[in-house]
Amino acid sequence: MKKIGLFLLSVLGITSVTAQVNLDSLVIKKISDDIFMNGQAYSNLRYLCKQVGPRLSGSSGAALAVEQTARMLREAGADTVYLQPCMVPKWERGAKEVGKATLSNGKTMTLNIVALGMSVGTPASGITASIVEVKSFAELEALGADQVKGKIVFYNFRMDPRHINTFRAYGEAGVYRSQGPSRAAALGAIGVIVRTLSPVIDDNPHTGATRYEEGKPKIPAVAISTLGAEELSKAIAAKQVKQVYIKTNCRQLDDVLSYNVIGEIKGTTFPDEIITVGGHLDSWDLAEGAHDDGTGCVQSIEVLRALKAVGGQPKRTVRAVMFMNEENGLRGGTKYAEIAKNEGKKFIMAMESDAGGFTPRGFGFTANSLQKEKLMNWKPLFHPYGALEFNEGGGGADIGPLRGLGTALIGLNPDSQRYMDLHHAKTDVFEAVSERELNLGTVVMTAMVYLVAQYGL
Amino acid sequence: MKKIGLFLLSVLGITSVTAQVNLDSLVIKKISDDIFMNGQAYSNLRYLCKQVGPRLSGSSGAALAVEQTARMLREAGADTVYLQPCMVPKWERGAKEVGKATLSNGKTMTLNIVALGMSVGTPASGITASIVEVKSFAELEALGADQVKGKIVFYNFRMDPRHINTFRAYGEAGVYRSQGPSRAAALGAIGVIVRTLSPVIDDNPHTGATRYEEGKPKIPAVAISTLGAEELSKAIAAKQVKQVYIKTNCRQLDDVLSYNVIGEIKGTTFPDEIITVGGHLDSWDLAEGAHDDGTGCVQSIEVLRALKAVGGQPKRTVRAVMFMNEENGLRGGTKYAEIAKNEGKKFIMAMESDAGGFTPRGFGFTANSLQKEKLMNWKPLFHPYGALEFNEGGGGADIGPLRGLGTALIGLNPDSQRYMDLHHAKTDVFEAVSERELNLGTVVMTAMVYLVAQYGL
Repeated sequence: MKKIGLFLLSVLGITSVTAQVNLDSLVIKKISDDIFMNGQAYSNLRYLCKQVGPRLSGSSGAALAVEQTARMLREAGADTVYLQPCMVPKWERGAKEVGKATLSNGKTMTLNIVALGMSVGTPASGITASIVEVKSFAELEALGADQVKGKIVFYNFRMDPRHINTFRAYGEAGVYRSQGPSRAAALGAIGVIVRTLSPVIDDNPHTGATRYEEGKPKIPAVAISTLGAEELSKAIAAKQVKQVYIKTNCRQLDDVLSYNVIGEIKGTTFPDEIITVGGHLDSWDLAEGAHDDGTGCVQSIEVLRALKAVGGQPKRTVRAVMFMNEENGLRGGTKYAEIAKNEGKKFIMAMESDAGGFTPRGFGFTANSLQKEKLMNWKPLFHPYGALEFNEGGGGADIGPLRGLGTALIGLNPDSQRYMDLHHAKTDVFEAVSERELNLGTVVMTAMVYLVAQYGL
Repeated sequence: MKKIGLFLLSVLGITSVTAQVNLDSLVIKKISDDIFMNGQAYSNLRYLCKQVGPRLSGSSGAALAVEQTARMLREAGADTVYLQPCMVPKWERGAKEVGKATLSNGKTMTLNIVALGMSVGTPASGITASIVEVKSFAELEALGADQVKGKIVFYNFRMDPRHINTFRAYGEAGVYRSQGPSRAAALGAIGVIVRTLSPVIDDNPHTGATRYEEGKPKIPAVAISTLGAEELSKAIAAKQVKQVYIKTNCRQLDDVLSYNVIGEIKGTTFPDEIITVGGHLDSWDLAEGAHDDGTGCVQSIEVLRALKAVGGQPKRTVRAVMFMNEENGLRGGTKYAEIAKNEGKKFIMAMESDAGGFTPRGFGFTANSLQKEKLMNWKPLFHPYGALEFNEGGGGADIGPLRGLGTALIGLNPDSQRYMDLHHAKTDVFEAVSERELNLGTVVMTAMVYLVAQYGL
């Protein structure tokens, strides 16, 4: 028997809840078997990483990614594949950054830095200034304008390794990357160095977006590797650092046209009830964007392929969406919700995979209590696949704007231990993804989409 | 407050179960914090992989590993560190193997092979014969001696990718590696090629022990990479393979003296109740033996360090044991149980970590029903650390012999998705281990040892 068929099961007219659960578990096993035997997510990811590569919004890589994921969606069996235009910011890093510290012994310490995304560049001659290190905003404020003015501020906040969920530590430390430049500028600083958001000590600076506050001067901002931060801090403590030089070449260009890429399988019974499943197609420029978020894209494409493979058309419409511009603008996610609002359809559920292609631990739900009850009833079906944690709260940046339409949001929660080691860094490459972990995540995504497509929410 | 103290908690004389659970969860959080802040497992693993390297039983690497893990145990704060002598087999691979297939078009296909552990070598001139491919023992038996005699048998059984737990697929496929040579020899085969036990298709042959059956001829046996197996199979199906040449240089030497390495923290209240926690110190010769089983060793050492760090002496005696010779003889585990039998102590629980240093999923228990009930009551304490699966059955090869003494056996079950990709292969290196995943596994191991040390079983 090649296909159990989502329909065949309905045709049987099973009413008992137990029998239904048993049949659902059979369908999910079929989905799992098919993904592990015939899955295309891993080879699609290889293509996206190796043939397309970095795909920051507005770049030629992003344009190629649009074209190629549209092809993948067609190959996965989508009925309809289309592009949803949206304007996106275009930021360019330019030539490799240079950072160095002049030491009191006459030597120079190289600082391994990268410009933060959306940062302004330095003047062509770079900036040279003395440096002041702080571990928190409280320390910065305590120093005050007197000791900050004209200087480079070095935020050396270490991600707390004690949080089991690394996203929690990332959230705590992330404020220095996002708000640090404007808060330092408000006190007269002329540049900012932020310690890389990573729990491991290595010489790999991670980029990521900063956000300038309206009305504050825009000053150049860079990230330094965690190892570099430790060494720089040591030198500062020993009063060895005379001054620091930073040169970055990044710039903000005019917005350009780009696209969300959408592939759809129309529902047989409730075609106007839409289930959205997606990841974001753009990635930072330093790496292949494998875990962030190539995996979320190829998994979403694979959901369509696997649904078709085991049963043809689902009862409700399933859309795989490659959102553009999650990293530095969220224009794609915003545009998708804006258009959804006027489509005259019911966006019942949206799921995002944007926490890496690691082994799945479960899901996070943002939904009303009736929906959550229904979702919790399905929990035992996920036990064989390791998705045991059904938690309150979650979704994804790109699907967040759909909440305004009453859409239930579901975030895939993979194991978080390895993500922050490579997030936004050049080490986020295809080789860092395990084929089986990627597939297992896809199995639980497809299973959840299948259940919602079959039973509604 | 630096140390909560295992004793302080007892001194408080808390009787309510809820209060006890709350205090236990505090101790476990302390353990976790300490491991993530001050853990030595990762740096010890780096040493074991990079400074010691491969450590097959009887090799100089194994001898150095004995010395160095004894040092690590002392540094971890063990009261007593000692070596437990045992004789171990000594098998050597010798020079790199050569494999090739002569094709009907006159070309030669290189076969990427490695000798299976404990295999006899070929004659110096190698062996040359025609090849017969089978996918199962049933196919072999169906061929019979007529079609097998004088040939090389190629077992091309693919590990089933549909099993979510890769150990299940490994178990199914593993019989061809362990029994394949003797069963082929019984029908007159002169050599055996076994498809590598791995779910991924790559050019990396994995070794591992084979077992010759008493009274059957011992014929040379090798593993071929999964990619090599696919290509060889294709060539055989196309009737292109004229003959196959195999040359291996391995040999079995006399048994030599080696050691289990034991570090102990004596219990304050019940010193004669022994909790054993271990991994195996020997590894295959092709790799650094990072996940198999360097991680189990450094985790077990770290259990002692973390227990001391948060509370000093536990109530019951905790022993970290680096078992020698798990891979090709189990002499260390056997010896440990043999001596335990006559120690006049109570070996209440033994835990092994020998499934890789991946993110923990839970534990498997081999215990009586009262013990299991107690263990299950502790399950909520492990929820924050991702160890949610408390399953029936499990333990570890090295601690298995203790079952004869009534010891409850506990196996750490990490996520299994990546293990078989690198198991027994040259890719099982330090770089394949995530520091946080390793630490998280150690946290749940230490927590379980703490609970048993505190409350008995």
